[in-house]
Amino acid sequence: MVPPMTDVLAFIDANRDRFRSELDDFLRIPSVSAKTEHDGDTRQAAEWLAGKLRAAGMDAELLETTGHPIVLGEWRGAGPDAPTALVYGHYDVQPPEPLEEWDSPPFEPTERDGRIYARGSADDKGQLYMHVKALEAHLATTGTLPINVVVLAEGEEEVGSRNLVPFVEAHRERLACDLVLISDTEMFAQGLPSLLFSLRGLAYFEIEVRGASTDLHSGSYGGAVVNPGNALARIIASLHDEDGRVAVAGFYDDVVEWDAKTRAQIAALPHDDEAFRAELGVPTLVGEKGFGTLERLWIRPTCDVNGILCGYTGEGAKTVLPSRATAKVSFRLVPDQSPAKVGKLLEAHLARVTPPGARVELRELHGGRPWKASLSGPAFDAAAEALEEAFGTKPVPMGGGGSIPIVVEFEEKLHATALLIGFSLPGSNLHAPNEWFPIENYEKGIGALARLYQKLR
Amino acid sequence: MVPPMTDVLAFIDANRDRFRSELDDFLRIPSVSAKTEHDGDTRQAAEWLAGKLRAAGMDAELLETTGHPIVLGEWRGAGPDAPTALVYGHYDVQPPEPLEEWDSPPFEPTERDGRIYARGSADDKGQLYMHVKALEAHLATTGTLPINVVVLAEGEEEVGSRNLVPFVEAHRERLACDLVLISDTEMFAQGLPSLLFSLRGLAYFEIEVRGASTDLHSGSYGGAVVNPGNALARIIASLHDEDGRVAVAGFYDDVVEWDAKTRAQIAALPHDDEAFRAELGVPTLVGEKGFGTLERLWIRPTCDVNGILCGYTGEGAKTVLPSRATAKVSFRLVPDQSPAKVGKLLEAHLARVTPPGARVELRELHGGRPWKASLSGPAFDAAAEALEEAFGTKPVPMGGGGSIPIVVEFEEKLHATALLIGFSLPGSNLHAPNEWFPIENYEKGIGALARLYQKLR
Repeated sequence: MVPPMTDVLAFIDANRDRFRSELDDFLRIPSVSAKTEHDGDTRQAAEWLAGKLRAAGMDAELLETTGHPIVLGEWRGAGPDAPTALVYGHYDVQPPEPLEEWDSPPFEPTERDGRIYARGSADDKGQLYMHVKALEAHLATTGTLPINVVVLAEGEEEVGSRNLVPFVEAHRERLACDLVLISDTEMFAQGLPSLLFSLRGLAYFEIEVRGASTDLHSGSYGGAVVNPGNALARIIASLHDEDGRVAVAGFYDDVVEWDAKTRAQIAALPHDDEAFRAELGVPTLVGEKGFGTLERLWIRPTCDVNGILCGYTGEGAKTVLPSRATAKVSFRLVPDQSPAKVGKLLEAHLARVTPPGARVELRELHGGRPWKASLSGPAFDAAAEALEEAFGTKPVPMGGGGSIPIVVEFEEKLHATALLIGFSLPGSNLHAPNEWFPIENYEKGIGALARLYQKLR
Repeated sequence: MVPPMTDVLAFIDANRDRFRSELDDFLRIPSVSAKTEHDGDTRQAAEWLAGKLRAAGMDAELLETTGHPIVLGEWRGAGPDAPTALVYGHYDVQPPEPLEEWDSPPFEPTERDGRIYARGSADDKGQLYMHVKALEAHLATTGTLPINVVVLAEGEEEVGSRNLVPFVEAHRERLACDLVLISDTEMFAQGLPSLLFSLRGLAYFEIEVRGASTDLHSGSYGGAVVNPGNALARIIASLHDEDGRVAVAGFYDDVVEWDAKTRAQIAALPHDDEAFRAELGVPTLVGEKGFGTLERLWIRPTCDVNGILCGYTGEGAKTVLPSRATAKVSFRLVPDQSPAKVGKLLEAHLARVTPPGARVELRELHGGRPWKASLSGPAFDAAAEALEEAFGTKPVPMGGGGSIPIVVEFEEKLHATALLIGFSLPGSNLHAPNEWFPIENYEKGIGALARLYQKLR
């Protein structure tokens, strides 16, 4: 039995204002997972969400972890022969600091220029809640869903998701599904719906270089003792060659060259290098020779300094010869690179390039594998149709420069296919002050997701 | 009339305990020039010193500057035909922080293992006060001094001496002298008195590299936008070649090669590379190829990172692509290099090596010219004799790796010769916790200086 889609969409239309005001309620809860003083708020957000899942007509409960609880919503009325989709999202948010840079309070959703400004509006409460409302529209209109649905919302995405993989492993049967649906990414541009074909992985390290056992006077000792600041600079400089390629031996061995069709699709996207350059405020764009900007961002690996600290960094001059220097250095990885192997290659590289007199230590801080989707198959086709119907434009394929390590884990542990449909927009200030989410995408997106659930049957 | 030296030395011997306890009083005054909350203490130290100069039998007054006052002591009873020596020192001290690393309170002088532990004991209150006591011994014993003496003690040496050169220029006639005596350096080793033949100059810069106008997400933008951290590392790495030489074009053009005799004297000093290495806690010593450790420290120029700050430097991982990176980079200079020229050369170097996409700014923070003494002449001979008589060993010539920019200024502005006789020891924790000064050097040094004044007649 196919529920009448017209009624579902009419319900969404009729409840537009309520859907908005409920999202505002969700956004008002400061569920900052990184801060213990917000532990109560974070739990409140989980309970609020579970309540809304129940109100929509699903079973829902909080499952405890050693950290913040996981919200699990379930509706299995479509029966064992119907497909099952697992919707993954997160109800926790990044800290809002620096507060003084927000034009309106981070936890008081404010509408300006067709956008909802609030922490978590785009990442990820707004996008997660669109699924809840799409599911409610089906259940309220027809008393049923086209497929079985499990909603899994965690509260630790912004602090490393350390309890999520163990949870998935411990609940493989309960979470069993055919498809994992994630809305935590962006569209290529306003009015241009998108489907993600890749995510880069991450290998994040701290490199510490030590010299003398204490800080020294640069006059009394300079010239005869290794300077960890200079040594660290040599090490970091050695990580790239003149063509902007990563100069760690073996780094490209596992990099998959993308097919001509994907590269042609990327080239066809309405991207303007000059506008991109101007928006960033840089004199020129740079990167690996032989690749365009979007390719550099999506299908090529990188090596970036995320931070350096060494010696005296206050005002004015202090003539210190520092005893240590540390850098955070991370690599974005593409299929089929692995963080573990990159760590080994980097370790060998450091052994080769560390200057005499310096001692180096490599610490692995974080890692995640890259992901590559197949842009074909019934789920992909269903999503493409649903997006085209809702937005009036065929979706474009796009890559993701960032990393969502859990995507690969879901696919492997649950033997399911992941489908990433994002609705936020470039420049929406994720993890920064004045995060925003476009109201048009929130409203059209609920309709798109309602259509998608229907088409996945 | 030559005063009877035996009586002067007997006076010093008889007043040993009082000289020690007066120094303790001086050290108890927390004259931290860098901190406004110590402005009163700093002035109190100046007044205390002026009082002791008067008690010794000299005229003394405080002369105001826009900062801390200058203490000027004068005795011109030797007449216009006798030589005049200007004794330069400073009564201000470095901040004592970190306090928790002191084994005894920084401003409560404590004797341990034949050392006086206190902030300023070596740098420079202890050494400055030895001159005051040597002068007192002459005046108390004979009612006169062998030569005319001006004592100039400033209170801003630890904060850049910004009022000193203008003061010297404004008082050229009053400060007119034949010889500038400075005790603010060290002996080569315990029991081995030393005379300084050089000081390195300093050219201290801040290099700022800017990329995008704001911090970016390293996943969303990494690979297509310049990373100021990586760019800064390339710039710093480019400052040296593989032989440990500074790779800035033209940098060595003005470097004077030292004569074979001085290099032989350096080579003859009782220096032990292995002990030096072990004390510093480094696996191996490094530096410019073709030179020994002491040469690298004294007669060769350097380039050292003093600090680097970029991006995220807290605990754990943050995937930020920083918008800026700054480094403090300083060069120690040798005759006849000049800070101004090195600044120009560095600017040209940066223009050549700054990676595309990055914008670089060079700020000059501090500069001082190098100094080279002639190790001959009557003043040098007088000092050598005085030191040998007091310590029982001929003094050795040594270089100074650090910078005392005022030395060259005194020589030029007053047309005088500078003589640097230091009594602290290597490793005495200048500018660090647990600063100390050897009691033996304090006591023998007062006798050496009393002899020196006598021999300068």
